[in-house]
Amino acid sequence: MVTEETAANSEAQSKKAAKKQAAKAEKAAKKAEHKATEHGTTENQDEASGEDYSKDKYGHCKMIQSAEKLSERNFVPVHQLGESLGTQSSVWVRGRIHTSRCKGKQCFIVLRQQSSTVQVLISVNENISKQMVKFSGSIPRESIVDIHANIIKVDQKIESCTEKDLELHAIEIYVVSQAKAQLPLQIEDAARPEKKDDPDSLNIRVNQDTRLDNRVLDLRTPANQAIFRLEAGVCKLFRDILANKGFVEIHTPKIISAASEGGANVFTVSYFKESAYLAQSPQLYKQMAIAADFDRVFTVGAVFRAEDSNTHRHLTEFVGLDLEMAFKYHYHEVLETIGNTFTEMFKGLRDNYANEITAVGQQYNVEPFKFLEPPLRLEFHQAVQMLREAGIEMDDEEDLSTPNEKLLGRLIKAKYDTDFYMLDKFPLAIRPFYTMPDPNNPKYSNSYDMFMRGEEILSGAQRIHDPEYLVERAKHHAIDISKIAAYIEAFRFGCPPHAGGGIGMERVVMLYLGLDNIRKTSMFPRDPKRLTP
Amino acid sequence: MVTEETAANSEAQSKKAAKKQAAKAEKAAKKAEHKATEHGTTENQDEASGEDYSKDKYGHCKMIQSAEKLSERNFVPVHQLGESLGTQSSVWVRGRIHTSRCKGKQCFIVLRQQSSTVQVLISVNENISKQMVKFSGSIPRESIVDIHANIIKVDQKIESCTEKDLELHAIEIYVVSQAKAQLPLQIEDAARPEKKDDPDSLNIRVNQDTRLDNRVLDLRTPANQAIFRLEAGVCKLFRDILANKGFVEIHTPKIISAASEGGANVFTVSYFKESAYLAQSPQLYKQMAIAADFDRVFTVGAVFRAEDSNTHRHLTEFVGLDLEMAFKYHYHEVLETIGNTFTEMFKGLRDNYANEITAVGQQYNVEPFKFLEPPLRLEFHQAVQMLREAGIEMDDEEDLSTPNEKLLGRLIKAKYDTDFYMLDKFPLAIRPFYTMPDPNNPKYSNSYDMFMRGEEILSGAQRIHDPEYLVERAKHHAIDISKIAAYIEAFRFGCPPHAGGGIGMERVVMLYLGLDNIRKTSMFPRDPKRLTP
Repeated sequence: MVTEETAANSEAQSKKAAKKQAAKAEKAAKKAEHKATEHGTTENQDEASGEDYSKDKYGHCKMIQSAEKLSERNFVPVHQLGESLGTQSSVWVRGRIHTSRCKGKQCFIVLRQQSSTVQVLISVNENISKQMVKFSGSIPRESIVDIHANIIKVDQKIESCTEKDLELHAIEIYVVSQAKAQLPLQIEDAARPEKKDDPDSLNIRVNQDTRLDNRVLDLRTPANQAIFRLEAGVCKLFRDILANKGFVEIHTPKIISAASEGGANVFTVSYFKESAYLAQSPQLYKQMAIAADFDRVFTVGAVFRAEDSNTHRHLTEFVGLDLEMAFKYHYHEVLETIGNTFTEMFKGLRDNYANEITAVGQQYNVEPFKFLEPPLRLEFHQAVQMLREAGIEMDDEEDLSTPNEKLLGRLIKAKYDTDFYMLDKFPLAIRPFYTMPDPNNPKYSNSYDMFMRGEEILSGAQRIHDPEYLVERAKHHAIDISKIAAYIEAFRFGCPPHAGGGIGMERVVMLYLGLDNIRKTSMFPRDPKRLTP
Repeated sequence: MVTEETAANSEAQSKKAAKKQAAKAEKAAKKAEHKATEHGTTENQDEASGEDYSKDKYGHCKMIQSAEKLSERNFVPVHQLGESLGTQSSVWVRGRIHTSRCKGKQCFIVLRQQSSTVQVLISVNENISKQMVKFSGSIPRESIVDIHANIIKVDQKIESCTEKDLELHAIEIYVVSQAKAQLPLQIEDAARPEKKDDPDSLNIRVNQDTRLDNRVLDLRTPANQAIFRLEAGVCKLFRDILANKGFVEIHTPKIISAASEGGANVFTVSYFKESAYLAQSPQLYKQMAIAADFDRVFTVGAVFRAEDSNTHRHLTEFVGLDLEMAFKYHYHEVLETIGNTFTEMFKGLRDNYANEITAVGQQYNVEPFKFLEPPLRLEFHQAVQMLREAGIEMDDEEDLSTPNEKLLGRLIKAKYDTDFYMLDKFPLAIRPFYTMPDPNNPKYSNSYDMFMRGEEILSGAQRIHDPEYLVERAKHHAIDISKIAAYIEAFRFGCPPHAGGGIGMERVVMLYLGLDNIRKTSMFPRDPKRLTP
């Protein structure tokens, strides 16, 4: 049994090796560029070395244009190859050339399929010609190939692949889609651990702009495959948990006629002969849904902020997980519902996405996310007290600065051992005009933020449902009442008391995983400087 | 046992009655405007007729500001009152005044909670004063009240309410949020059947613009409550069915740097110092997710079309249900997956949303939606043949006009008894440049539309995954290659063959229910003339 750990060996010298291989592959690819035959593969020319007895077993397939179904080919996913071992005489696998290396009469390929990898051996024998081995070694990395192979159990574990106990011995190999030989980044480099304690962390890495400029390649790393599967999980859990609590999903317009939360930071759209705006949140519309008797609503959708903030946690377009809920007498009915939703979400992620969390942890430092049940709820004045005890000078009604927010997170983690907490009763002065004041203390309000690892991920409040009081508070904020007339009107037909909140989806994923930049959790991020891809 | 069917009697004369009541209520409401006491209700002044012995049992509550939790009050949802009958001495209910009518010493209120209604009796006795009865009758329609009451079984069914076997005998009644007395539309009018064969259909109705201008009121009708719950169901089923088939949810940017499907019909956005566009579809991004190894993806989100189309089925902003899937050799692998997804969705709606379908059917003509399993698949040339046999003159490569599309739907319904079908192999000339041509006939393509009740709800195709061929086809369409360079580049790093489609979510709901206008299935619709609310 022959095995070789190509990936492990090559990592240290990967860039050099990759370049060399790329140049070779470019040459080979050019050579292979001839018309596909009617049988769907390129005709393999005889080499000087003699007749090619494998010429029908390899080559470039004709572009797949749905001319035939080939349903007799039994494709097996790479991660299920183990189950086919010993039961199937041969299988078909479609995957990418992750790495390849030829050595004499043998070619070793690591074939990658999403996050799974398997070693493939193409070795000269009575069925496999020298030419076929050479061809296999010349296929550029990242090309997609169909391989027909026997599954062979190996004695020595293949540590460089996710399938450690078997390898594939190729019978046929066809290129389905060829990658260009010079890639703007190597998957191996993009996937390299960035953990401080990892010896590998000194090796070449790919900077963020290169990653984002070539996102299609960057997204192929195991960490990225895991991040966006976990992100899908966050959305699914958010929706399923709330639907179980009687919430109805709604869809709110993104193009609006007036800036819902003040005129600053809003994108303008040309709307036929008028101007319109991109919604900064579904705030008005989810409140209208409450006034329209939907009782409990949520919505998942794009929100837009024309903020020129170039930080690790701001995007100009992100996904909002928004909810709004009527309550009977106290907004804590809502606060508890939201807190409980987070608890269920954290449990769901921990229990159903353990593989994804592990995969991210192989590239980045991921400390397990800690939470209490029920979640910790502190009041704003208590947070101020904790910060003061830690030496921070701040006013009672001053908002938390980003450094103070992070410090508070560390203090709370040290004291309560939780990465999630709710801060209730924010000062009235620093909240929007529609926030319900605290009836017991006019300096405070019935509003709250929620935090993960010391960063805000939700902002919410009881809203003012009384139209006269809403007008009074808007005037206090010097807001032009005529511009929000439609908003106020919505409360004149009877509206239950209600509260809600808006969650930044990408922040939840970033902070749950302990990542350092929100661009890692937005598939195609938008910031003031980035509009492509 | 006293019962009275207020709603049934008043429908015929509802507008007149409503106006009269509104005027009365306005007067009464003004009278009631005095400061709330510390106990949270307004002080009820003694009437000339003597001491008010119920003065602590009714009134306007102080604005609910979360000052107290009142958790001792056992609130019961209206539709669950039957379960509390005989087991609870008294219950609390929060709902809206749907209608009310005073008659001597009695006041009858129909209390509405979402789509459920129950009759409430406030009758003078040793605990309930004349003043309390009068107050109850003066509360404007649509106001929200808290009622403490005994549940009483009735002998004669109350046909005007959803709770037919019981009524509430009030002990206390408090106004939580008062509606203004003059409503721009009456819920009864907005909820009136519009079926041709219904005797009621001659009575007053509310026109669409009045409805949409006052959407918060309009959405309170039983049909609208049902439509948007079913709409949430469509999204949930779409996601759950695809997730079960291994699809991953993604989120794609709405702000893009270049018009993804040609420059026409695209909204322009000011993006800091640049111009950007609103995505007309997630096309490019879902294809990039396939190139990035996600294999099968879906996304639910806003899409924008700057089309000046003022029709029953066009919106400028709608919710796209989009999916894209890599396949092995034939795009029918994808076509079958999509068809099967629709079958499962139709079954899910039929089985899990029967109440909603019934509720919509009480206002609108809803013919049950018929579908075949597996779905019917016809080729475009067969459709042309059917139309020609029905007397239509058209070319082989001509697109279906809207009238022909609808006629085809009727012909297919008559022949196959299905409201859903797939039309495959559209002429190449009428499809976008990225559509894969049919390898067997250069006039046709590997593309398809799907239809519900004779209207298109999905358009899709196998996409060209080969960058050189994509360039060739783009040039054939006279497209400026430099503008789509990033799109083409995405296919240069190896990309599996793939196909997909985009579904108009509001159209699916409209056509499933057999409604006549897409504005009925968009909560806050946007068209060239409507940007508010």
